[in-house]
Amino acid sequence: MTTLWERPNAELGGLTPADFAVTREFQTRWNDVDAYGHVNNAVYYEYFDTLINGWIIESVGADPAADTYKRFVAESGCRYLGELNYPGAIIVGLNVAKLGTSSVTYELGAFRNESEGPVLAAIGRWVHVFVDAETHKPIAIPGDSRTVFTAAQL
Amino acid sequence: MTTLWERPNAELGGLTPADFAVTREFQTRWNDVDAYGHVNNAVYYEYFDTLINGWIIESVGADPAADTYKRFVAESGCRYLGELNYPGAIIVGLNVAKLGTSSVTYELGAFRNESEGPVLAAIGRWVHVFVDAETHKPIAIPGDSRTVFTAAQL
Amino acid sequence: MTTLWERPNAELGGLTPADFAVTREFQTRWNDVDAYGHVNNAVYYEYFDTLINGWIIESVGADPAADTYKRFVAESGCRYLGELNYPGAIIVGLNVAKLGTSSVTYELGAFRNESEGPVLAAIGRWVHVFVDAETHKPIAIPGDSRTVFTAAQL
Amino acid sequence: MTTLWERPNAELGGLTPADFAVTREFQTRWNDVDAYGHVNNAVYYEYFDTLINGWIIESVGADPAADTYKRFVAESGCRYLGELNYPGAIIVGLNVAKLGTSSVTYELGAFRNESEGPVLAAIGRWVHVFVDAETHKPIAIPGDSRTVFTAAQL
Repeated sequence: MTTLWERPNAELGGLTPADFAVTREFQTRWNDVDAYGHVNNAVYYEYFDTLINGWIIESVGADPAADTYKRFVAESGCRYLGELNYPGAIIVGLNVAKLGTSSVTYELGAFRNESEGPVLAAIGRWVHVFVDAETHKPIAIPGDSRTVFTAAQL
Repeated sequence: MTTLWERPNAELGGLTPADFAVTREFQTRWNDVDAYGHVNNAVYYEYFDTLINGWIIESVGADPAADTYKRFVAESGCRYLGELNYPGAIIVGLNVAKLGTSSVTYELGAFRNESEGPVLAAIGRWVHVFVDAETHKPIAIPGDSRTVFTAAQL
Repeated sequence: MTTLWERPNAELGGLTPADFAVTREFQTRWNDVDAYGHVNNAVYYEYFDTLINGWIIESVGADPAADTYKRFVAESGCRYLGELNYPGAIIVGLNVAKLGTSSVTYELGAFRNESEGPVLAAIGRWVHVFVDAETHKPIAIPGDSRTVFTAAQL
Repeated sequence: MTTLWERPNAELGGLTPADFAVTREFQTRWNDVDAYGHVNNAVYYEYFDTLINGWIIESVGADPAADTYKRFVAESGCRYLGELNYPGAIIVGLNVAKLGTSSVTYELGAFRNESEGPVLAAIGRWVHVFVDAETHKPIAIPGDSRTVFTAAQL
């Protein structure tokens, strides 16, 4: 089965937030917008990052000062299919696309939440690697995180 | 009558969103937080800016490429009374504290939206000057904006 | 003697980086710019924050996870006298305007670094309060910081 | 010939800024850093964006309000090989990896500029599509941009 990220843009048209296991709604901000009057491309990663970290913190907790492991971002990517604007509400969705020993791959969608329904504006991909907090060597994903990730696989 | 901004911090304890004419709710973002683990002080201005611009755009519209005037920020200020965190919901409120010929002064409040009710985290002040889009000379505040500002005076 | 911040805008015209005890040069970024095509007002605080923290880290060090005290920002403010643009170099300057038992007040200037010389674009003010890392109660400014702050008084 | 982006991480170790046709030096900012104490992953895209837009503006100019075409970001991606920190200087480099009729693909590198020499912290990829400013349909890359892009191919 192909993941959403692996599908060409032309096959992503009908995607909705219901195609994602985890969703959150955000507001865009005035300064998300650049000189071209739409949300800057780098800001999409702030939305993805906020969804991913928020979901993990709510699910298993996170204490940067005390945790014996860290999650390093090894890779990220985004394909832009439409604009996001200010003011505006957006819905960001996440699935776990791949679950390895030390790493987890998410696929993400960002939707404009328009009155006639959500419209896909971008699709993303993100890889987290779990590493020891001291040595920064990869470790096996802890059990509580693995349980949460498994439940977010579609 | 003293504006909220003019009151010392010790007299601001009982403030709630109901003390503001305009309010909006936002979500904090993962990267709002700095190395000290709380929302960075500069980000409070992004919240204020987002409220002010969003309210103006929704009330009278704004088209940076076509408008014959601009609103320049002449001054801004913030006093920090508590932390904001991620994840977290915040409520930002605004009153028009002073309305002049060319300039308008807002006072602002930022609240942590906790389960037991909103807690004031910061109070702000912001001055907009209306200027001609070409000459950048101050102009009289246009009638539609003046109406909106007048209604937001407490 | 009046501090720079206390002077009206009309008396700030001749200010140069040489009027500040500490200066740093930065580059603006593409996404510092908002829909109006100039650097967003909230971003000026990022410049001030970067100068202040960088100077303190280089002078006395800072370890958020280990330090027995924190510096809380109690107040910040900015008056905008001109635009900053992208691409562009800026010079940010700092003086210690007031040094108390637990708190230190900086005044700041942001200059466009144009080929014919620096042009003042904003003047700022910032108050740091030193607090115990656990109780968040004000403490006396530690000796090494006090030495650095004293040397930055004009 | 494989582009830098196509090479596995293990083969990127010896990369230096000299492997890139265009380079710029930036300073990191205090609020680039997140709760983990290093530069947030989304901020790398701000660095890439700043290099790309700055280079284009300096080479062929850009006037968002007047240009008859726009450059849309169609895709972006980043692989993280090391940390970036604050305070710190970084060098960002760019090559044109692929030049099509309407689109151009850049590959990017971000280096920590350490005293013993630059150390690669990330490698990136970015696709710009040139579109008509009104219809948003792809157009042929204008001649002045094509000349600049051709010169940046390695």
